[in-house]
Amino acid sequence: MNSFEFRNPTKILFGKGKIAQLKSNIPANASILFVYGGGSIKKNGIYDQAMQELAGFEVTEFGGIEANPRYETLMKAVALGREKKINFILAVGGGSVIDGAKFLALAIPYEAGDPWDMLVQQTAAKQKNVIPIGTKLTLPATGSEMNGSSVISRESTREKLAFGAPSVYPVFSILDPTVVKTLPRIQVVNGVIDSFCHVLEQYMTYPADAPIQDRFAEGILSTLIEIGPKVVENQQDEVLAGNFMWACTQALNGWLSQGVPTDWATHRIGHELTALYGIDHAQTLAIIGPNLYRVMFTHKKDKLAQFAERVWGIKEGSTEEKAKAAIEKTAEFFRSLGVKTKLSEYTPDYQQTADIIYNRFKTRNWLGLGENGIVTIDKVKEIVELSY
Amino acid sequence: MNSFEFRNPTKILFGKGKIAQLKSNIPANASILFVYGGGSIKKNGIYDQAMQELAGFEVTEFGGIEANPRYETLMKAVALGREKKINFILAVGGGSVIDGAKFLALAIPYEAGDPWDMLVQQTAAKQKNVIPIGTKLTLPATGSEMNGSSVISRESTREKLAFGAPSVYPVFSILDPTVVKTLPRIQVVNGVIDSFCHVLEQYMTYPADAPIQDRFAEGILSTLIEIGPKVVENQQDEVLAGNFMWACTQALNGWLSQGVPTDWATHRIGHELTALYGIDHAQTLAIIGPNLYRVMFTHKKDKLAQFAERVWGIKEGSTEEKAKAAIEKTAEFFRSLGVKTKLSEYTPDYQQTADIIYNRFKTRNWLGLGENGIVTIDKVKEIVELSY
Repeated sequence: MNSFEFRNPTKILFGKGKIAQLKSNIPANASILFVYGGGSIKKNGIYDQAMQELAGFEVTEFGGIEANPRYETLMKAVALGREKKINFILAVGGGSVIDGAKFLALAIPYEAGDPWDMLVQQTAAKQKNVIPIGTKLTLPATGSEMNGSSVISRESTREKLAFGAPSVYPVFSILDPTVVKTLPRIQVVNGVIDSFCHVLEQYMTYPADAPIQDRFAEGILSTLIEIGPKVVENQQDEVLAGNFMWACTQALNGWLSQGVPTDWATHRIGHELTALYGIDHAQTLAIIGPNLYRVMFTHKKDKLAQFAERVWGIKEGSTEEKAKAAIEKTAEFFRSLGVKTKLSEYTPDYQQTADIIYNRFKTRNWLGLGENGIVTIDKVKEIVELSY
Repeated sequence: MNSFEFRNPTKILFGKGKIAQLKSNIPANASILFVYGGGSIKKNGIYDQAMQELAGFEVTEFGGIEANPRYETLMKAVALGREKKINFILAVGGGSVIDGAKFLALAIPYEAGDPWDMLVQQTAAKQKNVIPIGTKLTLPATGSEMNGSSVISRESTREKLAFGAPSVYPVFSILDPTVVKTLPRIQVVNGVIDSFCHVLEQYMTYPADAPIQDRFAEGILSTLIEIGPKVVENQQDEVLAGNFMWACTQALNGWLSQGVPTDWATHRIGHELTALYGIDHAQTLAIIGPNLYRVMFTHKKDKLAQFAERVWGIKEGSTEEKAKAAIEKTAEFFRSLGVKTKLSEYTPDYQQTADIIYNRFKTRNWLGLGENGIVTIDKVKEIVELSY
């Protein structure tokens, strides 16, 4: 295990009806920017519940933050937030709305130029002047409700960039599993795959003498395999929904990755597929993940074999055989949820994708991704080609 | 899974040499009360390292906080802290020193009377005026470095009482595994048993539809079984020491118990054995734990069988058979570390213990401990008698 420094200050309010704690968790003098997405919260009653809790506060609304939140949209909220002199952001939505809120938290007080520069130059973590965020999660998936990470897309350049900062951890997040009941089925499927892949990014590297981190990761993976298909088929089951929601949060609240190598190359490549073709984030991970493990097999086979044994229950065979079986089991798990795992199943326009991504990564000087930089741009090209 | 609200704001600085981050984590204007234990930190160099880091701060020293920190000792530190108008507490030590620091954090600013009243009346969580704490852990065991709990003994009444408050979570804790090298062997043994029992208190109840919490608990238990005996025999191994230290912290930093029933009756009974006979805390847990599971078998057998299967690898037999085997395996694990598991092996004066504890619990109105109050005072008596 390596050295690390870590703090996760987010207060979690978990359970049915916890929105009733919203008011008491917002500072008394707050001038609130209330941000949300496409308007589903106006249909399922969450908007009304939130507004009821916010009675007495000064509230500025900004709806319409889209999946893969866009810089162009968010800059309108920046202007509004500045104009209204807001000092608290309430994000009601899924990972996209919360990721957007994190950008706003940094961008509204940012005076040094275009806020996009913080993402390009990776200076977000250095910003001192940041607006606090509270969240009410409406879609379990990304874990953004309990971490300091965010990913923003820029329409004009078809780019999708991530940033992380300790200052943008939500002050509180309300996790009410009953939100799962009204979600479109595909969003539940995406949540299962997204959280599963979040764990894999922090686990599927090489044995690193970190048994607690390994077993926590395996515990979440096993739980998602056990309950993922059930929650997709039984969205009304509040117990399943609660465990699904908690799995998604735990998958990316930081504990799994402390002191161990991480990969994240699947995400980096996947982001390009979303930026280029608008494919749902989770589905890009289902396309790329198994192929990344196939191409990087030599480096990852020991951990893949451990995954095979402990999570998939595959006890027979050589290290290589177990490792290969684990990759197949994983791809099969994604497909069993109804998700396609080939790029050509999403777009007819896939032939140049490997070259485009290769060139983008080269331009950005992303020459070695993954643990220890082993995923070179040549490997990236090979992974994407294998994903056609 | 039940509803819960939880926040753990402690910043962890984990790794060899992390004491070099001490200065930068203390507020610039701090007037520090530097508390420690019996003086081992003066022999192993940690005192000198800390003092070097504290150059430039106003520092008031208070050494001599004993194992099972005493109210009588701590009240001297309260007087000193008040006199010196300290505004930050640095605890360098194990769980006893850190628990003591938490009492000081509440007691120094307490103006309503005798600080002991906060423990008797369980009002610690309500105190607003609390002095911030930083810690440098020298003994992995209790998890106090990353939680808001503390246990204080009062010599004059032979009592040992626990309290918990969100305000006494350490602001930061420095975890350097190399401290394990110079510990007396028995303290390493005690740390393994203490953390193992901390997990059991939060896990060994009944199946509660909380697969993530279960698997995290099982992950720590499996890790302690795997590395516990090795770290006892190889205190110089920094990798083993690091995983042991991290297991102890994760065993009681709150995540395992969110949304699930907990027991803690073993601790309540064990505290009495320490208060009465001065038996090491961890050893009281080794005496009581297995007998509590024997007496409460009907209520706990389903979870005991799950523990047998997933942690001890016992796949054969009925639920009852697996559950019984798990109890035997656990007691055997404690004994394999060289710890005695009968009260009569510690004191010749044990015959009245069950009656004494029965009467104490009756006086305190502790009529039903454990999950759902199932551990009645009659059961407590039976458990203690079985432990002779």
